Amino acid sequence: VIDADRLQQMIAAELAGRRADVLAIDPRLAGPVDLLVRFVSDGGKRLRPEFLWCGWLAGGGPASGPDVDRVLQVAAALELLQACALVHDDILDRSERRRGRPATHRAAAELHAGAGLLGDPDHYGTSVAVLLGDLALAWADDLFLTGAAALDAIDDAAPVWRAMRTEVLSGQLLDLAVTASDVRDPATQEIDAVRVNRFKTAAYTVERPLQLGAALAGAPAATVSALRTYGADIGVAFQLRDDLLGVFGDPAVTGKPAGDDLVEGKRTVLLALARAALAAASTASTGSAARDELAELDAGIGDPAADRERLAAIIAGTGAVQAVESRISVLRQSALTALDGVEPGLDPAVHHRLVGLAEAATARVH
Amino acid sequence: VIDADRLQQMIAAELAGRRADVLAIDPRLAGPVDLLVRFVSDGGKRLRPEFLWCGWLAGGGPASGPDVDRVLQVAAALELLQACALVHDDILDRSERRRGRPATHRAAAELHAGAGLLGDPDHYGTSVAVLLGDLALAWADDLFLTGAAALDAIDDAAPVWRAMRTEVLSGQLLDLAVTASDVRDPATQEIDAVRVNRFKTAAYTVERPLQLGAALAGAPAATVSALRTYGADIGVAFQLRDDLLGVFGDPAVTGKPAGDDLVEGKRTVLLALARAALAAASTASTGSAARDELAELDAGIGDPAADRERLAAIIAGTGAVQAVESRISVLRQSALTALDGVEPGLDPAVHHRLVGLAEAATARVH
Repeated sequence: VIDADRLQQMIAAELAGRRADVLAIDPRLAGPVDLLVRFVSDGGKRLRPEFLWCGWLAGGGPASGPDVDRVLQVAAALELLQACALVHDDILDRSERRRGRPATHRAAAELHAGAGLLGDPDHYGTSVAVLLGDLALAWADDLFLTGAAALDAIDDAAPVWRAMRTEVLSGQLLDLAVTASDVRDPATQEIDAVRVNRFKTAAYTVERPLQLGAALAGAPAATVSALRTYGADIGVAFQLRDDLLGVFGDPAVTGKPAGDDLVEGKRTVLLALARAALAAASTASTGSAARDELAELDAGIGDPAADRERLAAIIAGTGAVQAVESRISVLRQSALTALDGVEPGLDPAVHHRLVGLAEAATARVH
Repeated sequence: VIDADRLQQMIAAELAGRRADVLAIDPRLAGPVDLLVRFVSDGGKRLRPEFLWCGWLAGGGPASGPDVDRVLQVAAALELLQACALVHDDILDRSERRRGRPATHRAAAELHAGAGLLGDPDHYGTSVAVLLGDLALAWADDLFLTGAAALDAIDDAAPVWRAMRTEVLSGQLLDLAVTASDVRDPATQEIDAVRVNRFKTAAYTVERPLQLGAALAGAPAATVSALRTYGADIGVAFQLRDDLLGVFGDPAVTGKPAGDDLVEGKRTVLLALARAALAAASTASTGSAARDELAELDAGIGDPAADRERLAAIIAGTGAVQAVESRISVLRQSALTALDGVEPGLDPAVHHRLVGLAEAATARVH
């Protein structure tokens, strides 16, 4: 298990240093930069650092000694990268809330209003959030570089770091394109949703952090390959779980209003499977109810004024939830089987941790 | 002089590689990613690469041999970083045009409209531009890392790269804060404008690229110090010239509509000096005309419907243009004097080039 306190100290120290750099430029920047500092300090489950750490250990890296702080620097880099992704994603999705608080662009708009500034608070909030996300991305790169260089692992790790960032940003671009497209065919929608899931979430959350940890440790190719298979499966399952939470999740757990995915028009596998079931049922002689529900669902998705509970009930009635749960189970099993490929065999403690993380990332929340 | 063709080839090859990475994820991403590829390929005066190259030579780096391509990689990184800054800045400033073409967020909105996509084209355009800027920033870091590692110069160069990115982003944040603040005192406005200029433009455009080149070459401290003084002065003068162009520039030269800075409400040194002159004249017994002009200026700045020619004429009538021109001259002279501090003396060809760049970056355009 990664030393969560030590990681938190690393993150706090890094943020304190960067905050001081910014305030040395102008102390009035405390307001905006503290939005980012708090977001990174307080937030998240530190899932990517956990996977990075498992990759490091599975790849043969030592669990103690001077290298640990260097791995933790790269772990902190993953959290800063994630901060950039979330802060910018909330702008794109027009999300109001994140982790139970106002999204960063909303918090910055509130700063504007509170300080009696000139101009449009919403545009100011978006502008500040664009720049804070950029700062997080730049600082992520600084930390990666520092940690990987100190581990003398740049040649092995830089290609993974590069692929991960290009993938997550391309996955977000693809998500925009897919959400804006007028495709109605459920099979195509499912393929698109799976691809967005793979690049926007799965690779970025599990597969690449594991691979990055293994690369920092100079792991053999068979180990990297086994970890990547596990990571790809668990990553996809993690997003499938998130899709279920986005429709049926408890706001107290998710930190976001219930059914936010529905009114944001998010094109999930869950939604594609629900639409496929309704479309299939519509062709039956008794299909008029299914036709009506499909029309109601299509009219409501992406509409901020839609009845979220009603849309969720339609989806639940199709059997799509069970179908998604089945996929999650299959992926989890496949992931655990892949771990047998690690050479020269996975340390039992690391294996236990990866089993636990697979569970934590994909388990029913309630 | 930097080999412009070779730099262009380096940029083109790098962009082709990254474009292929994105299209491997999904070929539908060609539309958005090509906006970025074209923006970086076609655009700009390559000023930052020129300064980087001068810093490299001034610091003792060889003008030929295998290291040149590595320096050019870092030069290409500067152009990608600049692409991020401009693409995001155009969102923040709500700029419609850049380099004689639609700004990236406007071009992306046109893609949306042209393809018959769902949703709000403007929000789609902004979203795509946020992600393209992020990609440019991530790719800039990849290139910096590759080049600096190959030159075995990470320890020397990474702190400069880090400072440059934090500075330009903090300068942009400060610009937002200053533009939104309701400060009316001309002296305070001038101090704020000078500080924004220093961090948002001067350090980022001249001082840090020169220092980065010198760091890549392992230059002695006296050389770095002399180059930084030159760079800070020329950088500030460059922005003062840009401020004049933003009000009085020929759109055919600037690629932006005449007087765009005025209607965007940009808080420049030029504007602060004009307001200071009008405020001083207002206190005289014959000051009613000045009072009226100050009120007219304050009402028009930041108003998209304002009469740009009239605002420009008011500014020109205050003598602020001559005051800014004087500052540019003084800074240019001070910068050239600083070059005498380079040890063991600057190669005459490099000296000649830095004199020429000082002229090019700050000269009257018409």
